[in-house]
Amino acid sequence: MSDYDVLCIGNAIVDIISRCDDAFLVENGIIKGAMNLIDVDRSELLHQRMGPAIETSGGSAGNTAAGVASFGARAAFFGKVSNDQLGTIYRHDIRAQGVAFDTTALDGNPPTARSMIFVTPDGERSMNTYLGACMELGPEDVEEEKVRASRITYFEGYLWDPPLAKEAIRKTAAIAHAAGREVSMTLSDPFCVDRYREEFLELMRSGTVDFVFANEHELISLYQTSSLETALAALRGDCKFGVVTRSERGSIVIRGDETIAVDPERVDTVVDTTGAGDLYAAGFLFGYTKGLSLADCGRLGSLAAGLVIQQVGPRLQTSLKHAGQQAGLI
Amino acid sequence: MSDYDVLCIGNAIVDIISRCDDAFLVENGIIKGAMNLIDVDRSELLHQRMGPAIETSGGSAGNTAAGVASFGARAAFFGKVSNDQLGTIYRHDIRAQGVAFDTTALDGNPPTARSMIFVTPDGERSMNTYLGACMELGPEDVEEEKVRASRITYFEGYLWDPPLAKEAIRKTAAIAHAAGREVSMTLSDPFCVDRYREEFLELMRSGTVDFVFANEHELISLYQTSSLETALAALRGDCKFGVVTRSERGSIVIRGDETIAVDPERVDTVVDTTGAGDLYAAGFLFGYTKGLSLADCGRLGSLAAGLVIQQVGPRLQTSLKHAGQQAGLI
Repeated sequence: MSDYDVLCIGNAIVDIISRCDDAFLVENGIIKGAMNLIDVDRSELLHQRMGPAIETSGGSAGNTAAGVASFGARAAFFGKVSNDQLGTIYRHDIRAQGVAFDTTALDGNPPTARSMIFVTPDGERSMNTYLGACMELGPEDVEEEKVRASRITYFEGYLWDPPLAKEAIRKTAAIAHAAGREVSMTLSDPFCVDRYREEFLELMRSGTVDFVFANEHELISLYQTSSLETALAALRGDCKFGVVTRSERGSIVIRGDETIAVDPERVDTVVDTTGAGDLYAAGFLFGYTKGLSLADCGRLGSLAAGLVIQQVGPRLQTSLKHAGQQAGLI
Repeated sequence: MSDYDVLCIGNAIVDIISRCDDAFLVENGIIKGAMNLIDVDRSELLHQRMGPAIETSGGSAGNTAAGVASFGARAAFFGKVSNDQLGTIYRHDIRAQGVAFDTTALDGNPPTARSMIFVTPDGERSMNTYLGACMELGPEDVEEEKVRASRITYFEGYLWDPPLAKEAIRKTAAIAHAAGREVSMTLSDPFCVDRYREEFLELMRSGTVDFVFANEHELISLYQTSSLETALAALRGDCKFGVVTRSERGSIVIRGDETIAVDPERVDTVVDTTGAGDLYAAGFLFGYTKGLSLADCGRLGSLAAGLVIQQVGPRLQTSLKHAGQQAGLI
């Protein structure tokens, strides 16, 4: 028996999303498609240079939690905001989606994290994240009862950027495993993988993490190879199973010698890729907690990712439960 | 010679937009399609009950200023925010659109205004506005040089809700007229008209306002008649010209005995009507400052309104100049 299907842990971030052309990224030294970490001064500079924007709650694992809840499953979230206007917005949105969220907020300083996301005409998003309050997430924020009560714990590799969040994750994984639960992670970003490659591999090889989500760029970064085949072969030995997303080429689930290829959703126009990987994980995790086959888990992931890239921002305003039912997947 | 084509004056509001069904409006006593004024307690209550939302800068005249700038014209804006996170967002968005905005911000108390906007499945928006910092806009906020330097001043009837903004408007109109400029207003909302009917009529009949924008509900409310024909006839005598929008039935421009009917844009799916009237005004005012015929002004209004109702939120992320050129109107 479990109270929650999925517990997600990650940086609690409000997204500030605007459009730009590719030249803007080059002129401002923004690595395209990546999560660029920035300090408060650069945050102000980029905001000045940014076009008119919209704001929406985001954060990788937060988006996944919202997606799991949108499928109708029970989700919880750990993440740090401040008691300020952006924090109020963040808390509202994730709770209003039905996600249990009770992490103690900071008293306004540092402020709630924000990511300035620039979306180029091809729909690709380039993120510039000021971590603010997220820097303070630590082991004291682990709500042990929720960990024990969650079938799956899922966290983002991005949590290796703040200083103490990794301690929270190791503590959480130990509690989860002691309660007979599974733990999963996303590798988050190729540059994040580059920063923490050895630690991520250790998490997998030590069994701290049972299964892993990655896109092909992150996987190739993890194993420092130019060959996806080589990387997939290595991944087979490093976790119980792995889920590798490949944008318009769909996704691959590997488990031991098994390889399951999953088709992508057909999408006419990619508006904004923000949240694609997060919503894929939401669909997959939802299916997994419902006992579906790995292929069907992947299909639910594709469905959710296909929907989110046709809108601006990473939080769907339509019901994934309804979409999954219409597609005959649930 | 003028430095600005259009100066817009209005409540500076961040929109918090979510979807709901019609029953939600009934259960929560929200008048559908209207701007419902709320206090801070009701603001918190409705926010608790609201689904996941997105945030975007809004405010009726602010949306119009952003639209005018998006057409490539020179716009300025007067409106009151606070120095808080929502105020920073507001200031950023309107300036990033190219609008001159220099109204002195409050020091955080009361906070920047927000409107919780509930969008029903038919696309209609129902607004719930906490005015916050907007309550402090007053005659000291009138930047006289900008008024003199603006070909047209445009303000919203909503400014009769805060206590001192009407003084700012009367002061502005006097300066504008002394400089040989024109002054226009929108009636804003049928219930707003009901609150300030006599004052709005006095503004028109005294020549404080040269021309007026209204939708048919506002016009009918203004003249307390059930007949649009009767209301239009009355309007002919009360202003130099009047522009009456009728949603999917297009719009009508009247000037003396003249009547110009303007077709609506063809729109397949109305996503969210937020900002429709504001963007209509933007297109019309842009055309007017460029010396186009009233019919072409109306067509530009229809174009802009037709675009904004196909997206969530009142600020277009695409260029109206480009859209106007593609449509062959500019």
